[in-house]
Amino acid sequence: MASSSAATSSSSSPRRFTIKVPCTSSNIGPGFDVVGLSLSLYLTLKVTVDANASNALPTLSYTGEGASEAPLDPYKNLTTRCALYVLRCAGVNSFPHGVDIKVNNEVPFGRGLGSSGAAVIAGILLGDALGSLKLSRARLLDHALMIERHPDNVTAALMGGFVGSYLLDLSPEDVQRKAVPLSEVLPEYPSDAGEEWGRDPPSPPQGIGHFIKFGWAKEIKVIAIIPQFEVSTAKARSALPDTYKKEDLIFNLQRLAVLTTALARSPPDSYLIFQAMQDRVHQPYRKHLIPGLPRILSSVTPQSHPGLLGICLSGAGPTILALATENQESIAKTIVEEFAKEDIKCRSEFLVVTEEGAVVTEE
Amino acid sequence: MASSSAATSSSSSPRRFTIKVPCTSSNIGPGFDVVGLSLSLYLTLKVTVDANASNALPTLSYTGEGASEAPLDPYKNLTTRCALYVLRCAGVNSFPHGVDIKVNNEVPFGRGLGSSGAAVIAGILLGDALGSLKLSRARLLDHALMIERHPDNVTAALMGGFVGSYLLDLSPEDVQRKAVPLSEVLPEYPSDAGEEWGRDPPSPPQGIGHFIKFGWAKEIKVIAIIPQFEVSTAKARSALPDTYKKEDLIFNLQRLAVLTTALARSPPDSYLIFQAMQDRVHQPYRKHLIPGLPRILSSVTPQSHPGLLGICLSGAGPTILALATENQESIAKTIVEEFAKEDIKCRSEFLVVTEEGAVVTEE
Repeated sequence: MASSSAATSSSSSPRRFTIKVPCTSSNIGPGFDVVGLSLSLYLTLKVTVDANASNALPTLSYTGEGASEAPLDPYKNLTTRCALYVLRCAGVNSFPHGVDIKVNNEVPFGRGLGSSGAAVIAGILLGDALGSLKLSRARLLDHALMIERHPDNVTAALMGGFVGSYLLDLSPEDVQRKAVPLSEVLPEYPSDAGEEWGRDPPSPPQGIGHFIKFGWAKEIKVIAIIPQFEVSTAKARSALPDTYKKEDLIFNLQRLAVLTTALARSPPDSYLIFQAMQDRVHQPYRKHLIPGLPRILSSVTPQSHPGLLGICLSGAGPTILALATENQESIAKTIVEEFAKEDIKCRSEFLVVTEEGAVVTEE
Repeated sequence: MASSSAATSSSSSPRRFTIKVPCTSSNIGPGFDVVGLSLSLYLTLKVTVDANASNALPTLSYTGEGASEAPLDPYKNLTTRCALYVLRCAGVNSFPHGVDIKVNNEVPFGRGLGSSGAAVIAGILLGDALGSLKLSRARLLDHALMIERHPDNVTAALMGGFVGSYLLDLSPEDVQRKAVPLSEVLPEYPSDAGEEWGRDPPSPPQGIGHFIKFGWAKEIKVIAIIPQFEVSTAKARSALPDTYKKEDLIFNLQRLAVLTTALARSPPDSYLIFQAMQDRVHQPYRKHLIPGLPRILSSVTPQSHPGLLGICLSGAGPTILALATENQESIAKTIVEEFAKEDIKCRSEFLVVTEEGAVVTEE
């Protein structure tokens, strides 16, 4: 009786694991839709799976950034929808019984720090863990790229470090993948949708994303100045032109090629990096969305702030990213003051590049 | 008497030095006007300066590629004109007395292997050596960039290896530099021009070019398949559009970012590199100038030729560059056969990346 009871107790004892996904910045000046940088603010999920619990569907609760905004319905929440997509691709049609997810979020929404990319990666890892699928990192990325077609943030969040990435093009698989509208992968559940809705999604083709991890000089620290307003990625994308002059294309190609290697060199060359972080593809078109941006980009320099390496919009903004080896406090102060002239309040975060990427830890 | 005679003999004994400049390839797929690769075909100058010689102006003679085409008038020859430009920037108005230059050229003209960039760098180094100016490499590059405004080939020829480069933009010095027409730096001498013509040229501003040397995996060898016809760079440039779709811009930015780091990684990842060498900025527009190009770019793959890493146009063409770790002979044979279908004869060169760049050796 005692051993049987122990066995029962053991088999029914709750499983607990933690998923920790870093925030990410993309673009970094000239690298529009190319580079992603994994940074030390985290979306953390504490997950319990208890077969003895009463809930059939996952329960969700949030603390931290955006806690009041995140949908708690597992068919509407981005993270649990991504998890269900991974499970269904593996032939598991439903969430396991008794899942509880406590989310703590340090990544502010709509500020250009990859909050939705982090939510997608958390969901992909959640699905993999709930199904005990043990998918490889590359295969996890395939799933993420079916949901988020801009690979920069999700690749950095999953793989960590400073990465360049793209979706493969023109292969038969790619054509097939493109033919699948996002709504079929992650359907917006109608209010009366039940468990049957959105079954049998298209499984991702193998290896649809290519990426490479660049080096990152250990001396380079990151300052994020986060204004208290949101910029929608869709609006920031619609501000961009459909075509570019050849000279602007070449301008960015030249600087991006230099930048990715320059940021790996130790000690960093501030003059080289500052020039190589100039951009003509997205920042000039987003000035009107972020008051003060032109002045910040032009007035905060390695001359005015020794130790500064470069300054750019983080993703679609409004967060400003500054790379520096020293004087982080004074650089942050100056940028905060520039925003204050526009009556915009900000907070500053002093971050480091996280080489590890997203991590799942079983307890 | 004896010592005086010896001193006279010593001071009047001819000075001899050799200038050896590598050929270069640029673009390497997605890196239009960005990257340059220094390769093992050389433009070599054997220079003698003999104060006892009878010639006031330099004498020139050529062997090798283009020997019958190169102008032998030192006011018309590109190399000696560049040398005179460097001398005049340093306040030396004339060539020294008694200069003889024996040129041996392995770099075919008009084939996309940087023959004119090599001639410019040879001239810059010649001027520096004739004037005993001992300019730094960075300062030599400034001079070269006053003459050749596309930095890719000249930077690779001077610095060696695999480099990314650009001219600085928007600085006051740059505006000033741009206001100086090229013809004032290197005037076309009219047939009756004398030594006075083209004096007091504008000296280059400091540090007008930025560059970085990427890594290059030692396993990667280069095959150049050189067709027996020329493509003028001007014509190849005029084939390009003035504007590009945003998606084509992003396509090249993504691949170039991955490529520069992927080529430095050992062992090279052929699948990653082959995809990252795809281009939408120049090769698609130059197909009509180089018969057979589309078929060569699409039919020679790592699957058909194991060891192949990637294939591209060298500079503006018509030379095809293939990067490979093995099977160089069969790769070359296939490309030569593809050109033969278009009735184009070719020769193949099996090259390596030269890390050293241009070299001056005093005897």
